[in-house]
Amino acid sequence: MLSRLRCIHRARRSFTSLSTLPSTIKDVLSKPPPDENGYTSPSTVYGWVKSVRRQKKVSFAVINDGTTLKGLQAVFLHPNGEQNTSLRNLVTGASVRLTGRLIESPGKGQERELQVEDVQILGECDPETYPIQKKDHSVEFFREHVHLRPRTTSVGVMLRVRDKLSRGFNEWYQTAGFIYSHPPILTGNDCEGGGETFRVSLDTDITTAEHPQRPIRPTTPLMATPEPTSAYLTVSTQLHLEALAASLARVYTIAPAFRAERSQTNRHLNEFWMLEAELSFLPTGLDGVCDVVEVSLKSVLGNLAKDEDVKYLRESSSSAPSDEHINAWLDPAIRWRRVTYSDALELLEAHHLSGAEPKFKHPPPKWGEGFRSEHERWIAGALGRSETGAQVEGPVFVTHYPRQMKPFYMWVDDADPIGLESAAADSRETVACFDLLVPKLGELTGGSVRESRLEMLKESLALHGLSEAQYSWYLDLRRYGTTPHGGFGIGFERLVSWFCGVESVRECIPFPRWAGKVVL
Amino acid sequence: MLSRLRCIHRARRSFTSLSTLPSTIKDVLSKPPPDENGYTSPSTVYGWVKSVRRQKKVSFAVINDGTTLKGLQAVFLHPNGEQNTSLRNLVTGASVRLTGRLIESPGKGQERELQVEDVQILGECDPETYPIQKKDHSVEFFREHVHLRPRTTSVGVMLRVRDKLSRGFNEWYQTAGFIYSHPPILTGNDCEGGGETFRVSLDTDITTAEHPQRPIRPTTPLMATPEPTSAYLTVSTQLHLEALAASLARVYTIAPAFRAERSQTNRHLNEFWMLEAELSFLPTGLDGVCDVVEVSLKSVLGNLAKDEDVKYLRESSSSAPSDEHINAWLDPAIRWRRVTYSDALELLEAHHLSGAEPKFKHPPPKWGEGFRSEHERWIAGALGRSETGAQVEGPVFVTHYPRQMKPFYMWVDDADPIGLESAAADSRETVACFDLLVPKLGELTGGSVRESRLEMLKESLALHGLSEAQYSWYLDLRRYGTTPHGGFGIGFERLVSWFCGVESVRECIPFPRWAGKVVL
Repeated sequence: MLSRLRCIHRARRSFTSLSTLPSTIKDVLSKPPPDENGYTSPSTVYGWVKSVRRQKKVSFAVINDGTTLKGLQAVFLHPNGEQNTSLRNLVTGASVRLTGRLIESPGKGQERELQVEDVQILGECDPETYPIQKKDHSVEFFREHVHLRPRTTSVGVMLRVRDKLSRGFNEWYQTAGFIYSHPPILTGNDCEGGGETFRVSLDTDITTAEHPQRPIRPTTPLMATPEPTSAYLTVSTQLHLEALAASLARVYTIAPAFRAERSQTNRHLNEFWMLEAELSFLPTGLDGVCDVVEVSLKSVLGNLAKDEDVKYLRESSSSAPSDEHINAWLDPAIRWRRVTYSDALELLEAHHLSGAEPKFKHPPPKWGEGFRSEHERWIAGALGRSETGAQVEGPVFVTHYPRQMKPFYMWVDDADPIGLESAAADSRETVACFDLLVPKLGELTGGSVRESRLEMLKESLALHGLSEAQYSWYLDLRRYGTTPHGGFGIGFERLVSWFCGVESVRECIPFPRWAGKVVL
Repeated sequence: MLSRLRCIHRARRSFTSLSTLPSTIKDVLSKPPPDENGYTSPSTVYGWVKSVRRQKKVSFAVINDGTTLKGLQAVFLHPNGEQNTSLRNLVTGASVRLTGRLIESPGKGQERELQVEDVQILGECDPETYPIQKKDHSVEFFREHVHLRPRTTSVGVMLRVRDKLSRGFNEWYQTAGFIYSHPPILTGNDCEGGGETFRVSLDTDITTAEHPQRPIRPTTPLMATPEPTSAYLTVSTQLHLEALAASLARVYTIAPAFRAERSQTNRHLNEFWMLEAELSFLPTGLDGVCDVVEVSLKSVLGNLAKDEDVKYLRESSSSAPSDEHINAWLDPAIRWRRVTYSDALELLEAHHLSGAEPKFKHPPPKWGEGFRSEHERWIAGALGRSETGAQVEGPVFVTHYPRQMKPFYMWVDDADPIGLESAAADSRETVACFDLLVPKLGELTGGSVRESRLEMLKESLALHGLSEAQYSWYLDLRRYGTTPHGGFGIGFERLVSWFCGVESVRECIPFPRWAGKVVL
């Protein structure tokens, strides 16, 4: 046996590229155009059958491998009217290997098509039981069949959009000098100080291969005795990112975060992915943080505005933003409006008293209260429209919220020793933070200047009823070489939902978990 | 107040780039060389003081912001011998803003230096209490001060290497047609079928900002009643990635994974990051999977072999691979040896019986048993050296392990309906899998062809005592348009540890969690 193996293993001594991987449909379609005779050398493609149309002497199928939106039209000639076994098994959902010649398509809808010479069915698909047919299932149906959902056009497209968004973010943040980092998911800290966190048992039961249904409790706990036996799933990696930013100056991550939300809304998930970034040496205070958010979003989304997948999602949605909106939002010359919480209250109140449309169901909040959805909509609408040169509603940074409404780590607007802009000059205490409100969705992202003054941070911990001992490490970051710094988080799912007009964030992540619902 | 704000917000109507962010030290050092007079226009840099050397009329400090290995030498002239307050506060760990002129350095060790004209201390640092001084602390000390650890040179360098590895992987996999995906972390499935998994409580307690120390048990559990109230932290995203690969053909992720390992070794963590990839339409079976692993690692590591950060780590380590090793490993012309488990056993046995050096403490395993570390070392050593043309020990793919040693989802080597190469032709059942063993570390990565035959997969589930009902969704992937497919996982920490010679994986991740130890 050894000698046989040696032969196999010696056969290919040198290889530098992945010539062993087959061409994707995207590769094949981007090949040079056919030659004069309309023929190129034979191509082999792999993919799943998306649809089949049978005629007497010819059949058509659309094949896709997930690398393109439209897939490839494959043409099968059977001039005698007979179809062989392979051709009869060519049904929606089956996986196939096709060899043929790529020719200019005489039909409408595609430039080129594959004239098939050889069909091999790799995986059959029983049309009687296959849950995905041409007719549309509800999104609810697919939330229960979440493992098959990526095969639908809209979810497949969404998955590619997430990929492109990630690439865009990686490129932008790396170019801007940010280091990609991996802060922890298991943590002893609850970043938001009182958020809804998932608890992880560290003296976890163990299941074994022999007794998978009968977990055993180990006699030695994972955690040494004096320590807590629970950890939490991170709600935000911010605090840990700050420790990294205190060495690397600019850091970011694309990582999962967890909130034990009971909300059943279109905007909440238990598990979601965020881009989070922290930057030290922030020369322009809160405006500097907003700038990074705005410029990076405009750049990344701008590169995707004409992407075919994004267009597909937008065109499938009745609530997607119009071209006019997208163009206005992404225009570098139209800066997104920035308005303080206090000013937003005054403007809401003035509008409410004026009796103009739209009328609010609820009066505007008092100072210290949160906005209701209708107020957020008005802010992103009326305020996003005025004063910016834009003719359409748009994103609005609402800044400087009351201190008690926000987490302990935000910069308190009472002093300005290092040139931070303090916009809230009245006696009510505010913090240097922002929520970015966007039309229809509401809060897309939030961030702040972080409190870098040791004594003020201790006061904020006390104000929020948090233990100084527990956050001693976080205070150390201020004790030793602190800097003016800030950061923010951008939720991936909300970004896809807003920009592409996908109604629920549950359709903006491959395997949604919400209100404790864990399918698979 | 409104009018004042309007002025502020109107001031910058147009901005397209991040001119508001200061230049990094890397930016400054990559500026064009000074002009004829040796001076350029003034530069402002921000960073932390790494070291200070004071002389009578001049002081020197090394400043770094984490964007470079060496930092920037700053020169402070005080010809009268007097130092002002700022200069006296210029101590290791302090954060500073320096303005001055970049000149050619007359000293050794750097091409250019900053002749400082203005010093601003942003964050002081008490040298009496600052735990990081020039003298070396032990790695154990920093595992307890993990929030300050990124400030040490070696950990800062490691963080940049992780960033560069991630970039390299993203570039390679995207070019090869893989879609970056976000499979779930919370899961109802235990991928390995009997691994040590962390349990997450879904009817989690809630702490509130008002009573942070007094968790309340919610009356409505997060999970609907008939469902389980626990989920698990994923040990591998493979099963979910397979569902995505059944639509997108090639997918990968860079994501955290969790194992409730009690091991206190240098190679085990409770939370670690993996690149995992799955690919459908695998024309060449297990060899195709190994090819992707080998070619991608050679490409990504090849681009980093001369990187200054990688070199720093290797030069700091007594156990780092030599240049000769690195060159041999990364040579495209020297394919990493592939040997079956069964052949490896025979070769181990033959070596053992020959009495040649090195002698084993333990006899080689019997068929069906795992290798001990000394056997793995011999395989990567003796086998990695012979027959490949390499003169040094090297990575070895050990393939086709006994079926009962490996998880349920691996392709059983008993039939070859779609051209998969079956190397284990004897009566003992094996699976089409590999472990990649590398010198000193042992297992770096593992993967397999996935079982794509429905009936065989059901048999494997039964063999492993796993419930068909629980894996019904996974079986669906075979029911409907299955393809020959496979995948693998590459652990980030082990990769850094092996390639850079970092002794423990705990120093290859920003915030290590091991044996239940969660610091911060």
